[in-house]
Amino acid sequence: MHRLTVDLADRSYPISIGKGLLDQLEQFAPYIAGRQVCIVTDDTVAPLYLERLTRTLDGYQVLPVVLPTGEAYKNWATLQQIFDALLAARHDRRTTLIALGGGVIGDMTGFAAACYQRGVDFIQVPTTLLSQVDSSVGGKTGINHPAGKNMIGAFYQPKAVVIDTDSLSTLPQREVSAGLAEIIKYGLIRDIEFLAWLEAHMVALRGLESEAITQAIARSCEIKAEVVAADEREGGLRAILNLGHTFGHAIEAHQGYGQWLHGEAVGAGMVMALELSRRQGWIDAADFQRAVTLIAAAGLPVQAPAQMAAEDFSRLMAVDKKVLDGQLRLVLLQRLGEAVITADYDKDALLATLSAGAK
Amino acid sequence: MHRLTVDLADRSYPISIGKGLLDQLEQFAPYIAGRQVCIVTDDTVAPLYLERLTRTLDGYQVLPVVLPTGEAYKNWATLQQIFDALLAARHDRRTTLIALGGGVIGDMTGFAAACYQRGVDFIQVPTTLLSQVDSSVGGKTGINHPAGKNMIGAFYQPKAVVIDTDSLSTLPQREVSAGLAEIIKYGLIRDIEFLAWLEAHMVALRGLESEAITQAIARSCEIKAEVVAADEREGGLRAILNLGHTFGHAIEAHQGYGQWLHGEAVGAGMVMALELSRRQGWIDAADFQRAVTLIAAAGLPVQAPAQMAAEDFSRLMAVDKKVLDGQLRLVLLQRLGEAVITADYDKDALLATLSAGAK
Repeated sequence: MHRLTVDLADRSYPISIGKGLLDQLEQFAPYIAGRQVCIVTDDTVAPLYLERLTRTLDGYQVLPVVLPTGEAYKNWATLQQIFDALLAARHDRRTTLIALGGGVIGDMTGFAAACYQRGVDFIQVPTTLLSQVDSSVGGKTGINHPAGKNMIGAFYQPKAVVIDTDSLSTLPQREVSAGLAEIIKYGLIRDIEFLAWLEAHMVALRGLESEAITQAIARSCEIKAEVVAADEREGGLRAILNLGHTFGHAIEAHQGYGQWLHGEAVGAGMVMALELSRRQGWIDAADFQRAVTLIAAAGLPVQAPAQMAAEDFSRLMAVDKKVLDGQLRLVLLQRLGEAVITADYDKDALLATLSAGAK
Repeated sequence: MHRLTVDLADRSYPISIGKGLLDQLEQFAPYIAGRQVCIVTDDTVAPLYLERLTRTLDGYQVLPVVLPTGEAYKNWATLQQIFDALLAARHDRRTTLIALGGGVIGDMTGFAAACYQRGVDFIQVPTTLLSQVDSSVGGKTGINHPAGKNMIGAFYQPKAVVIDTDSLSTLPQREVSAGLAEIIKYGLIRDIEFLAWLEAHMVALRGLESEAITQAIARSCEIKAEVVAADEREGGLRAILNLGHTFGHAIEAHQGYGQWLHGEAVGAGMVMALELSRRQGWIDAADFQRAVTLIAAAGLPVQAPAQMAAEDFSRLMAVDKKVLDGQLRLVLLQRLGEAVITADYDKDALLATLSAGAK
């Protein structure tokens, strides 16, 4: 079992990564203050893992809340189901929420924990590769608004993150690829050696070979933990974690949430960020090609949807959170392994990049 | 002008109290980071003060959001109107929300600020006596749920609190009394001298005489700031601020939110807490009578609604946030000027107190 810590002073917490952790009470008990526990999951994950986790937590008063699956339900109405259940079961301020599922479940459960009676404890138990390496770590929680993704939310840290790599065995291949998008991102923004390691192990990773996948998750969480520890509330550095996300969010919004997987949109979005970086002259054609090849090797799209025009991107990116006082700041690469957040790029190069998306 | 500070390390903020502050740009400008400002108010306060504050903020991009008035609208649907307006006007993460109104507006605006794009700045401009001495200070924000008051919310501190005492001139007498309930509370829980001062100045206070009311607000905010600084997230001490509130919440819930004013329910609730303290033998009959006399002198009810039975209280108090693992903790008085939070009281005395409420 790998174990690392997200270092945030009195809000620090451990991430445990290993096989079979869902069955180990000792992964959970130290982080549950009272006797009440509410496991929030969705109707895809519930049949697979809810009973197992409930059995592990035998002895607690366990309230299961099973939500409909998917990004389309990451909204207030679904969140309200969690509050309704907690109040109906009279869960008090010492209750602990457990998010059992992918990123949508983690984001909603975390936000529910942030808001229920002005804040209760919660534990992340991410079951998808994407959520294991990304959303379960760092405390970003929230729901979508019709006008934009994650527009309503909170920075709220879990008490622990428990990653059972066995849960990946039930994951569709398309979602494995989506998770690999974020893993590749960590290499691109901060660790050229990890990028090379990923190139060498991509087949093993797509095959979910235990040792490789555990190592990839651990290194990804490590990088994310470093960045979050340095900048919890995204005042600066943390934004580098959004490489490809501004473009990706526009793709998701244009297609309708849930059509493209988040990781797929990030894959294509990273290619756009790479292309703009290349047009700026910051990375050369060989580095660009190397990165695109790796993204493609992960089984990810490397182009925006054919029907998306430059105007679609401009319109959808203008409401993105990266817009500060009218300045669109983007995460670009100075070189492979080193990201920069900047509004200081050639606007024509951006336009050319957005237009190139539509082929 | 009085000025004091709520001391919360990097979340510290000033409270300014004085006449005509609404017209002074310097009360606001230091706490507005960007160019975008959103003034949230209700349709009672808007005709009185919205134009004035908007004129003061000339030079900013000001977005007004006017909500329906009253506790009945302190819910998700109303909150959503704030988010909708912010997104439609493309307010970004550097926007500043300004809560212009009473406690409901302050709580909702603060919670909107806590959640919008995972947290933006906000300024409290409380216009009622109750919100000036209570809800605008300390960072409790939130909305109601059909199952209970303030069940969904956040601890989220404003950047500044600006109290213009002139705004009290338009306040109905009933709301002046409601504000006095919380002011009396501060004397009861923590400052016997202030309690004596209140006894001596009650007529002046009800008449809103400027010097007296400014002093009462300042001392109330000072006590609240001390308590909040010692215990921001209500781990212990802060709960003493809830004297009378557990009973009061039950009264409000039973009557339907908005029928009894919050301060009125707290007035009657404090009498119940005093009565239980007397039955415990902690305060004597003379002190009990002294406190009840002061509460009555403020124009507040000193008895629960006649139709409320003990069972109504038991039922409604069981979902109160003060219930920890089945233990109903109450704020009681060890003596006048000294509160205690305890579950260690005679259950029959509680029952007798609840029954005495229904006459």
